[in-house]
Amino acid sequence: MTGSSPGSRNAGESSSAPIQPNPNRPTDEADDSSNESALLADNSIEDNPRFQASFKKKRKLPSGLTLPKFLSPHTANRPAVQPSLALPTARSRRLRDLSSHNSSDVSLASGNGHAIDGPSAHDNKDGGAIDWYMEGPGRRVGYDDLTAIDWIFEYTKERQRLRLLYSHATGLLGHAQQILDASQIWIVLIAAGLLSGVLAASIDVCQGWRYWGDALHVKSSAGQYIVEYIFFVLYSVFFAFCASVLVKEYSTYAKHSGIPEIKTVLGGFVIRRFMGLWALVVKSLGLCFAVASGLWLGKEGPLVHVACCCANLLMKLSPSLNDNEARKREVLSAAAAAGISVAFGSPIGGVLFSLEQLSYYFPDKTMWQSFVCAMVAAVTLQAFNPFRTGKLVLYQVTYSSGWHGFEMVPFAILGIIGGLYGGLFIRSNMWIARWRKTSRWAGSPILEVLMTGFCTAVINFPNKFMRAQSSELVYMLFAECAAVTDDQLGICKLGAASTGVIALLLEAAVLGFVLASVTFGLQIPAGIILPSMAIGALYGRALGIVVEIWQGQHPNALIFATCEPDIPCITPGTYAIIGAASALGGVTRMTVSIVVIMFELTGALTYVLPIMIAVMISKWVGDAFGKRGIYESWIHFNEYPFLDNRDDSAVPDVPVSQVMTQIEDLAVLTATGHTLQSIHELLVAQPYRGFPVVSDATNNILLGYISRVELMYALKSATSEGRSLPPSTDVFFSHQPTADLRETVDLRPWMDQTPITLNGKSSLQLTVSMFQKLGLRYVLFCDRGSLQGLLTKKDVWYVLDSTEGARSRVGEGGGILREESRGEARGLLNRDGEHNGFTSPIDER
Amino acid sequence: MTGSSPGSRNAGESSSAPIQPNPNRPTDEADDSSNESALLADNSIEDNPRFQASFKKKRKLPSGLTLPKFLSPHTANRPAVQPSLALPTARSRRLRDLSSHNSSDVSLASGNGHAIDGPSAHDNKDGGAIDWYMEGPGRRVGYDDLTAIDWIFEYTKERQRLRLLYSHATGLLGHAQQILDASQIWIVLIAAGLLSGVLAASIDVCQGWRYWGDALHVKSSAGQYIVEYIFFVLYSVFFAFCASVLVKEYSTYAKHSGIPEIKTVLGGFVIRRFMGLWALVVKSLGLCFAVASGLWLGKEGPLVHVACCCANLLMKLSPSLNDNEARKREVLSAAAAAGISVAFGSPIGGVLFSLEQLSYYFPDKTMWQSFVCAMVAAVTLQAFNPFRTGKLVLYQVTYSSGWHGFEMVPFAILGIIGGLYGGLFIRSNMWIARWRKTSRWAGSPILEVLMTGFCTAVINFPNKFMRAQSSELVYMLFAECAAVTDDQLGICKLGAASTGVIALLLEAAVLGFVLASVTFGLQIPAGIILPSMAIGALYGRALGIVVEIWQGQHPNALIFATCEPDIPCITPGTYAIIGAASALGGVTRMTVSIVVIMFELTGALTYVLPIMIAVMISKWVGDAFGKRGIYESWIHFNEYPFLDNRDDSAVPDVPVSQVMTQIEDLAVLTATGHTLQSIHELLVAQPYRGFPVVSDATNNILLGYISRVELMYALKSATSEGRSLPPSTDVFFSHQPTADLRETVDLRPWMDQTPITLNGKSSLQLTVSMFQKLGLRYVLFCDRGSLQGLLTKKDVWYVLDSTEGARSRVGEGGGILREESRGEARGLLNRDGEHNGFTSPIDER
Repeated sequence: MTGSSPGSRNAGESSSAPIQPNPNRPTDEADDSSNESALLADNSIEDNPRFQASFKKKRKLPSGLTLPKFLSPHTANRPAVQPSLALPTARSRRLRDLSSHNSSDVSLASGNGHAIDGPSAHDNKDGGAIDWYMEGPGRRVGYDDLTAIDWIFEYTKERQRLRLLYSHATGLLGHAQQILDASQIWIVLIAAGLLSGVLAASIDVCQGWRYWGDALHVKSSAGQYIVEYIFFVLYSVFFAFCASVLVKEYSTYAKHSGIPEIKTVLGGFVIRRFMGLWALVVKSLGLCFAVASGLWLGKEGPLVHVACCCANLLMKLSPSLNDNEARKREVLSAAAAAGISVAFGSPIGGVLFSLEQLSYYFPDKTMWQSFVCAMVAAVTLQAFNPFRTGKLVLYQVTYSSGWHGFEMVPFAILGIIGGLYGGLFIRSNMWIARWRKTSRWAGSPILEVLMTGFCTAVINFPNKFMRAQSSELVYMLFAECAAVTDDQLGICKLGAASTGVIALLLEAAVLGFVLASVTFGLQIPAGIILPSMAIGALYGRALGIVVEIWQGQHPNALIFATCEPDIPCITPGTYAIIGAASALGGVTRMTVSIVVIMFELTGALTYVLPIMIAVMISKWVGDAFGKRGIYESWIHFNEYPFLDNRDDSAVPDVPVSQVMTQIEDLAVLTATGHTLQSIHELLVAQPYRGFPVVSDATNNILLGYISRVELMYALKSATSEGRSLPPSTDVFFSHQPTADLRETVDLRPWMDQTPITLNGKSSLQLTVSMFQKLGLRYVLFCDRGSLQGLLTKKDVWYVLDSTEGARSRVGEGGGILREESRGEARGLLNRDGEHNGFTSPIDER
Repeated sequence: MTGSSPGSRNAGESSSAPIQPNPNRPTDEADDSSNESALLADNSIEDNPRFQASFKKKRKLPSGLTLPKFLSPHTANRPAVQPSLALPTARSRRLRDLSSHNSSDVSLASGNGHAIDGPSAHDNKDGGAIDWYMEGPGRRVGYDDLTAIDWIFEYTKERQRLRLLYSHATGLLGHAQQILDASQIWIVLIAAGLLSGVLAASIDVCQGWRYWGDALHVKSSAGQYIVEYIFFVLYSVFFAFCASVLVKEYSTYAKHSGIPEIKTVLGGFVIRRFMGLWALVVKSLGLCFAVASGLWLGKEGPLVHVACCCANLLMKLSPSLNDNEARKREVLSAAAAAGISVAFGSPIGGVLFSLEQLSYYFPDKTMWQSFVCAMVAAVTLQAFNPFRTGKLVLYQVTYSSGWHGFEMVPFAILGIIGGLYGGLFIRSNMWIARWRKTSRWAGSPILEVLMTGFCTAVINFPNKFMRAQSSELVYMLFAECAAVTDDQLGICKLGAASTGVIALLLEAAVLGFVLASVTFGLQIPAGIILPSMAIGALYGRALGIVVEIWQGQHPNALIFATCEPDIPCITPGTYAIIGAASALGGVTRMTVSIVVIMFELTGALTYVLPIMIAVMISKWVGDAFGKRGIYESWIHFNEYPFLDNRDDSAVPDVPVSQVMTQIEDLAVLTATGHTLQSIHELLVAQPYRGFPVVSDATNNILLGYISRVELMYALKSATSEGRSLPPSTDVFFSHQPTADLRETVDLRPWMDQTPITLNGKSSLQLTVSMFQKLGLRYVLFCDRGSLQGLLTKKDVWYVLDSTEGARSRVGEGGGILREESRGEARGLLNRDGEHNGFTSPIDER
């Protein structure tokens, strides 16, 4: 890969030669890697010299930014056949192979054709870093796709980098270098904000596409309802088709809203190419088509994904960010705020959304960064001014009157409806998602989209509320009648005439509910925020009109005493706003951010309190249906390994010893007695992702933990050109004063010599807290220094996920979990291969 | 104390008999305890039967709410001479005694006069809990004053409580009990919100006091400027005197804004009586006087303290909350949001303030609770409607025009001024605080207040801007000239006439700066938020007028091209708003919350973007002066042991082994070989707060950690009536199969058998993360099971606090810290007595 020719579109093919330099290698291995590189070449960013790096690491450092020396060996020159470049499909195949004891990816063949000048244990002993990787958490190669990152390690790495930067850089140039280094994150954030703003403005322009369609059918002579209808349906189906083909052909990562995946990524999981250039292009373009198709979907969630893609791509310009998975996630959190900021013109709402919904464990740090990024995005959007109003507020409403005490009752009712809507929506949407997975349509997502598009158009056209674009609809429902000049939808009629309107509003709400639950989950970019708001606004406005009629008929009733005469007492538009907030609260279970978004969206400051109360009630009612919001439900449905740090009650109350993989079931390395050959055989025989290292087999005194990738890499460097040691070479994990350093391999630099350990008697709760709060990948359990067991992040996730249903029973006794889920859990525990259901949703296709 | 007569004002004296039942006890011990109880009786809440408990623990459980059985022994009956009841002064004296090897507080004398039916190790073995305290974190007695809490333990305790509640409660009654238990936190939050709203409304009414004074001197015939002046000064001095006497005589905890202390408490520190009834009463009443005195202070910060006091007192009604220090802090965080909510009529701003400024490590959990509490408080305040505007927004402004692109330049200038103001204010305020500490005035806070009150009044009166109440002033400065009917302050004059106004505005800003830096830190309730806003509004308005004049003189200049003719182009009021935001940003270094507060305060949605930019610049400029905001500076100044989880860069980059207390310096217990007598002697000889327990003196295999209070309590129960074991009784910390349980003492239930351990080679950074994120009190360091050292939270705080100055040097090499601060640090490390500077600020007087 080092020799790939930059700029060539077919870098994958052209670089395939150095990738498999050794013709002796097993065939399937070679297949895998050429497959990998060919597919990676999909992503044209790989070919751009400035973007030459893989998704994760820069291979070449731009001048002026020195990466600490101790990091460079394994970043500057990495072996081509590295698992971290593997594709999901290729990988999962290989994993299956592995678990059937196929030795394919563990090759000790030396003479790999390209130089690995990388670290034998005793190179690159930089003064500052030596004790760190000789005694600390060890060197790391990088993360495989679909694995958890180690936050602690990443932050330690960052501190080491800074330490070296600060110690090496002296004088004016050094200071400039430091400032440049510190300002990189801000440059990326500001650039990401700018780009998000520009993209959002462009996508807004796409909404005009729909009007071209409208413009066309308007030409057909009046009364030709059927012709209009047919055109409407045709346009819808056409645009839906475009969106789905784009997604299917170019990047399936562009489907859905992306928010569940972003949550998972921010929670410390690696999903390669989810935020790549193709995802960005397809999502942006597909979003235009999807919105233009008139399907019941929103662009708000997808815009968050778009903003994250922007930030992720821009980060490739800054190796110090791009090489650090933890800092990367800080930037992505901030970018997510920019997404909501441009979606609603709501910068503060965006910050809170990122904080409440997305960010995992660094809210304080992220807050200020999110703030800046969201602000830049909002300013950019305003500068492009797609709505030509000169104001940032999308649906600015100015109500001439405040609200009355008695209105609290209908507002509370709206909260209850919102909660019911949210709960029912999540249930039906999940039911449809499950049905979709098993039905015969599962294989033909495009057909499914076409069918949905057709049905939606057929249903939408006859109802004037549904025919309108969702964003237009919401705007009109929010408006005060007094301020409306042309009452297109006829919602400002008074008296008896409005009963028909109420029926139509309710019909639209119900049909919208059905269509939205079918649409959210299709293989197109689709968000749920705007449809929920539209549905909420529909039933809210309906209730508002009901109250208005009632007040009109009984103006002198006691409860209406606070109404002033001769002035409209009820403003149905406010009911629409509160309804929208309640529906959003019910579906997403967010609270503060919804209030702020509604507030920034409408400028309706006077109505903050009713909105708050409605959202509060809505969340409570919704929680009665189940604690998970729509995004958490999708995370659960897709079986993403996301450790929710919001809800502790799911943790069974057992000592961790009942859950951990016991030492008897672990593949453990001893400090001495291994050769390159025996380690190789172990790697072949054991599919585990990492191995604890103990002093000897009797005492099991824990010395450290070495993970599979590092072990493989160390083996490879020991057997490749630089050293070319024979397979019988002794390897060891502890200090051997008598050993000849030239003829043995000391693997300590690759070992985490300070793994986090806990006492096996500790509670599972504590262990889970440590995983959540410190962002660990594994915890080892010791008693008086001797290893007892191990738990990985994925084990914990699996235990929590599988016991959630049995939660109530678990509370009663300690031992239930053991009996119930150990059998299943063992299948997954510590295995490289995720259990079957897992890989499928993130699989490329 | 168990026998104290409820309702008697002099409970302290009447209950002194059972407190010193044993006349053989050393005299100074007896002195201490009677002293304690007498002083505790200050707080009349102790005498109320419903509030009978101490600050920390309920002694009697209300019916209907069962506390788990296993917790009751040491909560229901605690020995009277318990350190947790000690007063700061009494305690610190005793600690000094202790460190001079005085045996006073370690008494093995049996027959203590009142029954300690508390746990011998083998009582109360509740099925559910036995393994928890036999193998888990051990039993705990409670926290001493001025110690750190153990978050992990508190949450574990809560889970144990819930587990028992859920397992015991069956049937309808059981379910009702569970619901009651779950709803307690909401009841407390809503009640706290209500109470905060009512109190805030009452305090607002106090602002009228000032007008009575005004009303009086208005009667004096016109032109009698001198008489008015004298009256003005007299009133000011009188009110300031009242406030300072209240604070001095009844509760010094009511001084200052309280926010630094709240931050420290929420960070996991115990400051007894800081949120007691007396603090509440004195703070509320004193705040009225302080505000009425016309001093340059605000009521916003103190209102946060008031709200926290409300919540703290209400929590006493709910033992499940009151007994758990961690959940207590969740409620307090929410209450803090209510404080800001009522201070500014800004519920969302309050939530963000709590999140950004106060909450320590549970922002997600707290968010929703804060939201509810802040909302209830805001609604209550609105119901009382002290401003009679019918609106929640305090300073509602409606600007008729938007802002122009060229105005970004003056807005950015305001941001820079704000940052400068903030940086300078913090420096001068800290300088004055240090000076005050050493000056001869230090002993006479009342005189100091009087002097400041006098000077303030003398300076304030001649300047019409300063004469006005700060809140009025801010309101008038924010207002748009077009909307102002009576221009009391003459700020709407146009043209040349306004140059005088500019001078007056700037004069007021500068003098206000000086007065505010003197005032913030006086021994009266005083906040800094409103004065900062006023100063910012003053210089903002001045700049606004300058720009307005400039535009008026050059209406055709290129940069003013976007101005429409014949319409006022510049709105100086908006400059005041932005100036206020920038000043607030410079002083507090908050970002998002300031924007939201300004937004909710003024309803100026159009100006969100300029406000954001100004706050952003202000923070950056302010950070150039030093990273700490005003509250952090005070925390640092007062040497509160607050581990800031926002700023990681202060952590020296060294292995923890260079910082920890090495095993050679530790007092370590061995598992066997101790008798009651030897443990007693150890407690007498060693001042340490806790002791690691190891297998034997050669191997040092770590078995656990037992803290001093638990050890003392266990000794006492072993030697008191129930068991009355002789001093030669063997005690052990490990399983002794041959030992007779009746004639030996097993101390394992009191020992934390699963302490958090780390490898000594780990980085200090990781250790600090664990303290911050998991809320630990101590971490033990092991290598292969054998104890190497120990670090407590206070050690960490001390190391970070003392190395912050030397930060730049520390970055260069690992060993600096060792040489520089080990000597000093060792004085504190693991000692019971805090170092000298510490106790003074929280000392009662």
